[in-house]
Amino acid sequence: MTFDIQTPSLATAQRSLGPGNPTYPLLPAQLSGCPKTSNETIQFPLEVAYDYASAGNVSFARGTRWQDWQAILPPRHPRASMPVGGTPLVDVSDVAPPRFRHRRVFVKDESRNPTWSHKDRLNTFTISAALYEGASTIIVASSGNHGVSAAAMASRAGLNCLVLTMPEVSPAVRDMILGYGAYPVYLPADARWPAMRALKEIPGTYPVSNLTPVHTGHPWGPEGYKTMAYEILADLDGAAPAAVVVPTGYGEMLYGIYKGFHEARLLGRIDQIPRLVSVEPATRGPLHHAIKAGLPATTVAAGPTVQSGTAVTVNGYRAVVALRESNGLALLVSDDRARAANAVLARQGLWQEISSSAAFAALDDIEAFDADGPVVVIGCSTGLKEPAEPRAATATTPDLASMRGYLKTEFGFVI
Amino acid sequence: MTFDIQTPSLATAQRSLGPGNPTYPLLPAQLSGCPKTSNETIQFPLEVAYDYASAGNVSFARGTRWQDWQAILPPRHPRASMPVGGTPLVDVSDVAPPRFRHRRVFVKDESRNPTWSHKDRLNTFTISAALYEGASTIIVASSGNHGVSAAAMASRAGLNCLVLTMPEVSPAVRDMILGYGAYPVYLPADARWPAMRALKEIPGTYPVSNLTPVHTGHPWGPEGYKTMAYEILADLDGAAPAAVVVPTGYGEMLYGIYKGFHEARLLGRIDQIPRLVSVEPATRGPLHHAIKAGLPATTVAAGPTVQSGTAVTVNGYRAVVALRESNGLALLVSDDRARAANAVLARQGLWQEISSSAAFAALDDIEAFDADGPVVVIGCSTGLKEPAEPRAATATTPDLASMRGYLKTEFGFVI
Repeated sequence: MTFDIQTPSLATAQRSLGPGNPTYPLLPAQLSGCPKTSNETIQFPLEVAYDYASAGNVSFARGTRWQDWQAILPPRHPRASMPVGGTPLVDVSDVAPPRFRHRRVFVKDESRNPTWSHKDRLNTFTISAALYEGASTIIVASSGNHGVSAAAMASRAGLNCLVLTMPEVSPAVRDMILGYGAYPVYLPADARWPAMRALKEIPGTYPVSNLTPVHTGHPWGPEGYKTMAYEILADLDGAAPAAVVVPTGYGEMLYGIYKGFHEARLLGRIDQIPRLVSVEPATRGPLHHAIKAGLPATTVAAGPTVQSGTAVTVNGYRAVVALRESNGLALLVSDDRARAANAVLARQGLWQEISSSAAFAALDDIEAFDADGPVVVIGCSTGLKEPAEPRAATATTPDLASMRGYLKTEFGFVI
Repeated sequence: MTFDIQTPSLATAQRSLGPGNPTYPLLPAQLSGCPKTSNETIQFPLEVAYDYASAGNVSFARGTRWQDWQAILPPRHPRASMPVGGTPLVDVSDVAPPRFRHRRVFVKDESRNPTWSHKDRLNTFTISAALYEGASTIIVASSGNHGVSAAAMASRAGLNCLVLTMPEVSPAVRDMILGYGAYPVYLPADARWPAMRALKEIPGTYPVSNLTPVHTGHPWGPEGYKTMAYEILADLDGAAPAAVVVPTGYGEMLYGIYKGFHEARLLGRIDQIPRLVSVEPATRGPLHHAIKAGLPATTVAAGPTVQSGTAVTVNGYRAVVALRESNGLALLVSDDRARAANAVLARQGLWQEISSSAAFAALDDIEAFDADGPVVVIGCSTGLKEPAEPRAATATTPDLASMRGYLKTEFGFVI
């Protein structure tokens, strides 16, 4: 089987994160983890390897963008043509914990992507792989950002898309799946993964979400998140931040951001990888428990949480590697703290999903860092896709009471 | 009264668009139109004048951004600090009318702004003016993008914000107003403007939306939309498009985009201003009727429409100037055509509000242009803020029938 790839990418192979790091051809994608190193209890993911020795002129200087980094990204299919990324760093130092303010704290606002979340970066490359492999129909199990993004990117690329979701999916997400022209399939939560495995046996179908008990996912997907690290470097004039705080489910984004900085160090552009900090809901947190137990992965009970973007019960091994290699931290945040942080960020003009707000709340739990430089918190998605929660207005004016009286007396308005 | 302005802006004055173009100091903002030229039947808006002779080094080359254009923008207050704009041109040539495809058609995706609409550009400068004038409380009459944006930008700047809206405001917009920390005031539609005029008499309050029967608005606001023209030039390597198609309510954005290109010509950067095309709901269209009748403004009945972003009953004079000076067109589009275009854009990965989808539909009504170059359609805002409409999935697979049977037989799944 050959794949017609015309691209300046220096990608050479799929490389396992399992013991011995066996490699495989760049395509077809290994969609069920590394076949050589995985076993019944642990499945190892794969990443993309590159000919870094030929990437000497890749720059992360101010003003550089995706096209400047294509050499160290997977091949991007011409039909995966949606402009993605270029999201800004929004200064929130004024409301950060006092001990961080002098170094500045930013939220990287991923809600400025095409479907208003970080997932568009991942799907740029999962959809590219699907196109190179000749797929006709994307299949994805998701009731949130991933499903919405896959639906949009698949439609734009001329592919069909089935989104395996749940009857209780939020109305906004359901409308988007339908609106983008995809086909929502409502299944009980437990039935979605068996259905994925069944559907992928049908010729032409192509899964872009995970198929294994311990999360492995599509090997090309996390490569898209490397652009977040590159963009941070470009926006900070080539300097690395002290830390990046990442809302973490299966850890694909955590690993992608880590890998981007790792590559920048490999290419001699920075001296030190920032500390990666993962943030999970306090009622779950499989990565936190895996790190604590020194295990590649753990499974936890499905504790209740409103942090839907990171509400997983098993971690991926990628996330363990990212924290280990960056001297990272695995933090837990309660729903109450996430909600409070959501309100603080909103008053800075950032209406984020609750699970991303948790990452900002986690700043309170981070002690001092070794490195200088700012702290970057990843804000993954708009709050608009989530079910509304009761909120209260906080605006007050010195004259609100008299304003009320004035309007009532003069105009009969009650405000 | 003095204003502490420290900025590289070359802004010199407020300049009336009324007969004789009288000028006023840059601040305080003339919030009720030009006092010298307006009368009971027509109110004339103002704009900002600049010392263009000193702006010789302003560039619209690829890679230039807001900071490069600050000389020909109003002073930006340091507390109006949200990164805004930098929205991409998304190629939709594949689904444009065949006669346009060879020249390429783009949607400028304004849903990539901080509150997911173009209004953040306007409010960057209305909030700046409010800060320079020492206001404590922003007041704005809006049930959509403008109110949401003002709420966010005001909160970030440390200002209070009252949003005069209606009981039937969409839940998403209501939640955002509350979430950003603003204070929604629910009033009957007819009561909102009397309430605005009453509230502005209270010390410290500052209106950022219109106060006059014929729309005039805040003189600094449309200046923010000039950046859309500058960004288009930068993204097209300094070359002007043939036309820009703009969903149009009161015409502040239409005028701002026109003015940006006008300035680029004034500074010798382009030879010809693109043709500006306004698009209004077919059941209303005050600008269309004003142009047809040769009047500075007309008032129309409040015909029913789902194009809520452009559902106005009176135009602003600015829009007439923009069309006249650019050999423009004033088009009308029905709700049915807007809905159909919404679905076409969604399948290109662009989930836009209905009123912006109308602008894409209007391409069908545009005959050939004199100038070469691409056509840019402005997509103002995400569809996520609008009430959901019934939609239908269109995804099909060659094997959907057999897939259904297979899953049902093998797994008992019904899809």
